[in-house]
Amino acid sequence: MPVLHNISELIPCSTGLPRGETGRILDAALAWQSDRIAWLGPASELPSDFANEDVVDAGGCIVVPGLVDAHTHLCFGGWRADEFEMRCRGVHYLDIARAGGGIMRTVEQTRALDEDALFEQARSRLAYLTTLGVTTVECKSGYGLTLHDELKILRVYARLKALGAARIVSTFLGAHVVPREFRDRREDYVDLVCLEMLPAVASEELASYCDVFVEEGAFTEDEARRILGTAASLGLGSKLHVDQLSDVGGAALAAELNAVSADHLEYTGRDGIAKMVEAGVVPVTLPVASLYLRQPPLDARQWIDAGAEVCVATDFNPGTAPTGHLPLAMTLACTMNRMTPDEALLGATRVAAQAIGLEEEAGSLEVGRRADFVLVDTPSVNHWLYNFEPNRATATFIGGARVHAR
Amino acid sequence: MPVLHNISELIPCSTGLPRGETGRILDAALAWQSDRIAWLGPASELPSDFANEDVVDAGGCIVVPGLVDAHTHLCFGGWRADEFEMRCRGVHYLDIARAGGGIMRTVEQTRALDEDALFEQARSRLAYLTTLGVTTVECKSGYGLTLHDELKILRVYARLKALGAARIVSTFLGAHVVPREFRDRREDYVDLVCLEMLPAVASEELASYCDVFVEEGAFTEDEARRILGTAASLGLGSKLHVDQLSDVGGAALAAELNAVSADHLEYTGRDGIAKMVEAGVVPVTLPVASLYLRQPPLDARQWIDAGAEVCVATDFNPGTAPTGHLPLAMTLACTMNRMTPDEALLGATRVAAQAIGLEEEAGSLEVGRRADFVLVDTPSVNHWLYNFEPNRATATFIGGARVHAR
Repeated sequence: MPVLHNISELIPCSTGLPRGETGRILDAALAWQSDRIAWLGPASELPSDFANEDVVDAGGCIVVPGLVDAHTHLCFGGWRADEFEMRCRGVHYLDIARAGGGIMRTVEQTRALDEDALFEQARSRLAYLTTLGVTTVECKSGYGLTLHDELKILRVYARLKALGAARIVSTFLGAHVVPREFRDRREDYVDLVCLEMLPAVASEELASYCDVFVEEGAFTEDEARRILGTAASLGLGSKLHVDQLSDVGGAALAAELNAVSADHLEYTGRDGIAKMVEAGVVPVTLPVASLYLRQPPLDARQWIDAGAEVCVATDFNPGTAPTGHLPLAMTLACTMNRMTPDEALLGATRVAAQAIGLEEEAGSLEVGRRADFVLVDTPSVNHWLYNFEPNRATATFIGGARVHAR
Repeated sequence: MPVLHNISELIPCSTGLPRGETGRILDAALAWQSDRIAWLGPASELPSDFANEDVVDAGGCIVVPGLVDAHTHLCFGGWRADEFEMRCRGVHYLDIARAGGGIMRTVEQTRALDEDALFEQARSRLAYLTTLGVTTVECKSGYGLTLHDELKILRVYARLKALGAARIVSTFLGAHVVPREFRDRREDYVDLVCLEMLPAVASEELASYCDVFVEEGAFTEDEARRILGTAASLGLGSKLHVDQLSDVGGAALAAELNAVSADHLEYTGRDGIAKMVEAGVVPVTLPVASLYLRQPPLDARQWIDAGAEVCVATDFNPGTAPTGHLPLAMTLACTMNRMTPDEALLGATRVAAQAIGLEEEAGSLEVGRRADFVLVDTPSVNHWLYNFEPNRATATFIGGARVHAR
């Protein structure tokens, strides 16, 4: 039974703690048996049963729960660096999309690759996320937009899950955009999603959630109601991409549909905030996307003052958030969304686990839970997210096994 | 004479190229002799004299000039992570300063350390910058604010320079803020700067430039005129921190004083832009500071449309820009300041060298110049600054010697 010693601060982020609290323990120790946490607390209180166990030296690092990235589009074919340059020059994202770029270009590039090729790329990206301390990843489809290609992407995620290391939560996002070939018959596409894709996804158990992008140029509220209603009847939970480019009333819709989370929310007003808080929908901020799209960021203090806890995720995708660097997103959540470093850490651990329905399994360090944790070379959480360095994660453990060490 | 082969793209950023152009060479080679560049161009045109030389494999990386960080406060004592948390909660930077925090707190912590302690910290930070591809660093004093402590900081920089690796340009910033002990007699402090500090700095040849922070709570335009006039008479060039928190007319002042650069400029209006462009003062954007202070960023397109080239620097300091990650600043220059990736690269190489008077020595790859270059593991400049990863610099060479390898 290994025991991790010389931890300057252990930040368990336990469930049951009051909102905003991390439960920090100074001069701590952490013991695990097989893949589960067996004990944690102040080193001075380590029970004598653990005295003769294998000692692992944390080197004075702080230890935090394995990070949870609750919003990624991890499986995609091809990058879009050229569009980035266009956007820097001032071309609007929606104009690039109308000209054949944007999501539809990634759809074409993703359709062109077979499952094995996509799996190899996604596996390499996942390994990279692990080096940053990420141990749980929500992964969306949505770059296939045919029955065949959506299932192909979700099978890539099933294979990542079967690797047995990082925890993977899959989300079906067939309603990402209306694909070009359905442009003049969008109802037929919604039929395809509801009558063919969703039943196939459900019968193969390829996704836990269904997500819909509600926006001008994507799907309407009524279409979202139909799609997520169908998904719910098949046992899939609901998620929503809303209020990213304008206030489309998406927050109220998320509350009405009892979504587990609603993501983006840059333009959500007070009324939408109140409704989501009342319904217990987790708000997910994606500051990397706000940065890259040069948008007014979500004001997390408004949400927190209204009673919410805010999840922080990357939105990792090849267009609007082309980095999977979750600690960078956490720093941006502080500088752009006005979250404190503790709130940003909770937003990428305990709250992020809630946003993907894993609050009983991931996002906190508690006895009996899987030993997913990260050693971070910094004097404090405040210092980590303030003094940005390329990567302060010196070691990542998943199920008690060291999967990354610097 | 080593020859670097297998370079997918060599980006020389040569002087003499039209504004905005990097002079990219595909499938290139680069040869150097001792510490100087001997040849560069398409690998197919490598002269036969080089055929039997030592081959270094660039592994398909792109090669760019050693990066130039034209604005840092590298020597400081102590961090201020707690103030970062306060600012996240909404406390204003100037209110923190009035309550004893901010720059004056770093001044106290810097005064408390002796030269050797400061040197060890600064040397460690400089080594870290080198791993990111930075080979030239402008370093400001300004956390001493007594004759003794300002000279102490500048001597730290002289010792960094004497190490003979990264190129160091020192700037005297005695006029950073009026120290607390002079609060009620600010003219006496300006006298101290002009009559004691500047002559001592000049006689020991401890700085190439003098900088003044012109802002409410710092120094007035007239004080800046007197200080920079005195500095000029002693042979020091002029730099200015201006228009960071409000439009104080700082750009026009920089033009009037023929400063080599004016830095920050978040609030500079059209008239100030026109005057600086006409006078040839290099505008320096510091997007990390804009991000951390949650300010409207400088719009680089306005400057570029007016005929300028914009320098990108970190402003590395323990308060408002607590990271020395210049490639992150370059990505932020794209996302926040609307520079293209090529413009951001030029802004951290050729243009940055101009901003510190080193345009004949640093910031570009040309035959006869010192062989300061970086191997960057990315398919293109666009991709590098778009798909942000912790650190893509796989090797940094200074004077032909590999000082960092991953």
